[in-house]
Amino acid sequence: MVFAGSTLTSTIPGITAAGPSPEATLYTPTLDVEYLVAGKPLTLDVIPVTPEGIPTPALVTRASLSLVESKHLVVVDAGARYEPRIPHTRLPSRRTGGRIDVEDAMPEGTARRLYEEARLLARSLVNRDTVVMLGETIPAGTTTALAILEALGYRAVGRVSSSMPGNPHGLKESVVRRALERVRGVNDVYSIVDRVGDPVHISIAGFAAGSLESGATVILAGGTQMMAVLGILSRLGQTGGIAVATTRWLVEDETSDILGLLREVSPATPLIVVNISFADAPYPGLRAYEEGYVKEGVGMGGAVLAAVVRGGASLGEVERRVYEEYARLVGRGV
Amino acid sequence: MVFAGSTLTSTIPGITAAGPSPEATLYTPTLDVEYLVAGKPLTLDVIPVTPEGIPTPALVTRASLSLVESKHLVVVDAGARYEPRIPHTRLPSRRTGGRIDVEDAMPEGTARRLYEEARLLARSLVNRDTVVMLGETIPAGTTTALAILEALGYRAVGRVSSSMPGNPHGLKESVVRRALERVRGVNDVYSIVDRVGDPVHISIAGFAAGSLESGATVILAGGTQMMAVLGILSRLGQTGGIAVATTRWLVEDETSDILGLLREVSPATPLIVVNISFADAPYPGLRAYEEGYVKEGVGMGGAVLAAVVRGGASLGEVERRVYEEYARLVGRGV
Repeated sequence: MVFAGSTLTSTIPGITAAGPSPEATLYTPTLDVEYLVAGKPLTLDVIPVTPEGIPTPALVTRASLSLVESKHLVVVDAGARYEPRIPHTRLPSRRTGGRIDVEDAMPEGTARRLYEEARLLARSLVNRDTVVMLGETIPAGTTTALAILEALGYRAVGRVSSSMPGNPHGLKESVVRRALERVRGVNDVYSIVDRVGDPVHISIAGFAAGSLESGATVILAGGTQMMAVLGILSRLGQTGGIAVATTRWLVEDETSDILGLLREVSPATPLIVVNISFADAPYPGLRAYEEGYVKEGVGMGGAVLAAVVRGGASLGEVERRVYEEYARLVGRGV
Repeated sequence: MVFAGSTLTSTIPGITAAGPSPEATLYTPTLDVEYLVAGKPLTLDVIPVTPEGIPTPALVTRASLSLVESKHLVVVDAGARYEPRIPHTRLPSRRTGGRIDVEDAMPEGTARRLYEEARLLARSLVNRDTVVMLGETIPAGTTTALAILEALGYRAVGRVSSSMPGNPHGLKESVVRRALERVRGVNDVYSIVDRVGDPVHISIAGFAAGSLESGATVILAGGTQMMAVLGILSRLGQTGGIAVATTRWLVEDETSDILGLLREVSPATPLIVVNISFADAPYPGLRAYEEGYVKEGVGMGGAVLAAVVRGGASLGEVERRVYEEYARLVGRGV
């Protein structure tokens, strides 16, 4: 499952690298899921690669999932700005989140509805004794995750990750400080998300809760954003049966601290790290992942895990498949 | 999977009983899937039972599926007039079909897009060696099915079923005759559906095709409407690996001829009949099913099959669960 959505927070200049311009970040979730399912973006005629040749993490997800025969790939629209032009699941209360430094993320009551809708979806879709993997695509999601975590009482400033090597902690903190002024004295987790969160994290939390109720195991496939999901679930009393899966790049990142966050938010939750490396990639755009670009997103770490554990592939096979997919995307032979 | 959609053909007075008034039939697919997933209609505050107490077939589907532990229930919006207020899957090209006696069902090209989108969805969702069950909710769907079948060259007039004991064959035939004037000389199956079909049958065909390509077995859970799906698939060269599941009421119906249609459209396709009976039901509204009301819809026959084969229930248990659900709905004890 990939949950797609936007927050206008991503249009704050410099806050995210997930798009060629601040406004263009609002297209990214739509293009990501279109590429993931259809093999190319449909809403815009673009290649999901930066001018420097650095690809979307959806490339790693797609390449990895191609090595897994038995899978259900479901795209959930929790609030994409542009409706994906692929078949996708829609939460009735989906909406793009507001820019949290200047406005509430969503009208009061939305977070609770999204949570319950996603929970209902899980109870329709998920069977006992299965493993459900949940990924996200929401530019500036680490900033809203930071706001959610701080509002829930965790010390998260300076610890969330970024899609850039130079993590703009100062900018994120100033955005979040302004957001937090609107939740002083607010304790209700749904109200917190309505005011300073976004539509994606609460939806993932609801789906996780419904999956656990159905008797499944949940893997949150993502980085520090998933700490916000765990924070929400922890506040709602639901953290057993969950693991987090992410990449080596995220865990080794010196500008963020997923292990510290996890210890604070849900210490009993295991963290699964896939040891993928693009150090030997034949393309500079992929080697950039070794320099701190991208790190996580679109369930990348979880997809690699699935390729290895369910698909029986070696990490080398996953890496080669990624290189082939990159070559296909940018139109060059390996 | 339940495919929901509308055709304005259902607003022709007298053509369908699936709604309290011609205009209200446009709400029925939305209310059916809301009730199926959430336990009650959400878009309108109604009980899905006619003034005479005859319930929607979705009641039988819901009661039956409650006896199956391992299932994925997916609602696909192929063209509902009102967006269902439950999580649901959306085909990007979905649209409500036109009234086929006076206008084309859909703009040229829509049927092919719906087919390909549903096929892509199946390839994302469906695993090898699984069984996929496909149901429908589209009032007046037997009329558009009749038009599709006739346009494809089958003799279907007088052979499709109806939700009423008095099957209005004359009315259906006159609607379809007018529609068929617009497909004289048209051979392309997609063009036929664009002009005289609806969004649901072609979407089910696309999903069936994608499921077969994924190595799954397909059960078309429905009555004579599914003959139109088979007709489309047959024309596209895809009929192996498919069975049809329906109810005793449909097969015993003297106003329609599913076996004759099946022999003509796809003779090698097996028909699975569930021997359910409400003759001993404690409610007249359910006993009406024995008098020719409803007969099929919302995957009812397939859901009973699932309860028996996958859920291990006896038919008596299914029937009792239906009676309990009816009592819950109308607020009376058994």
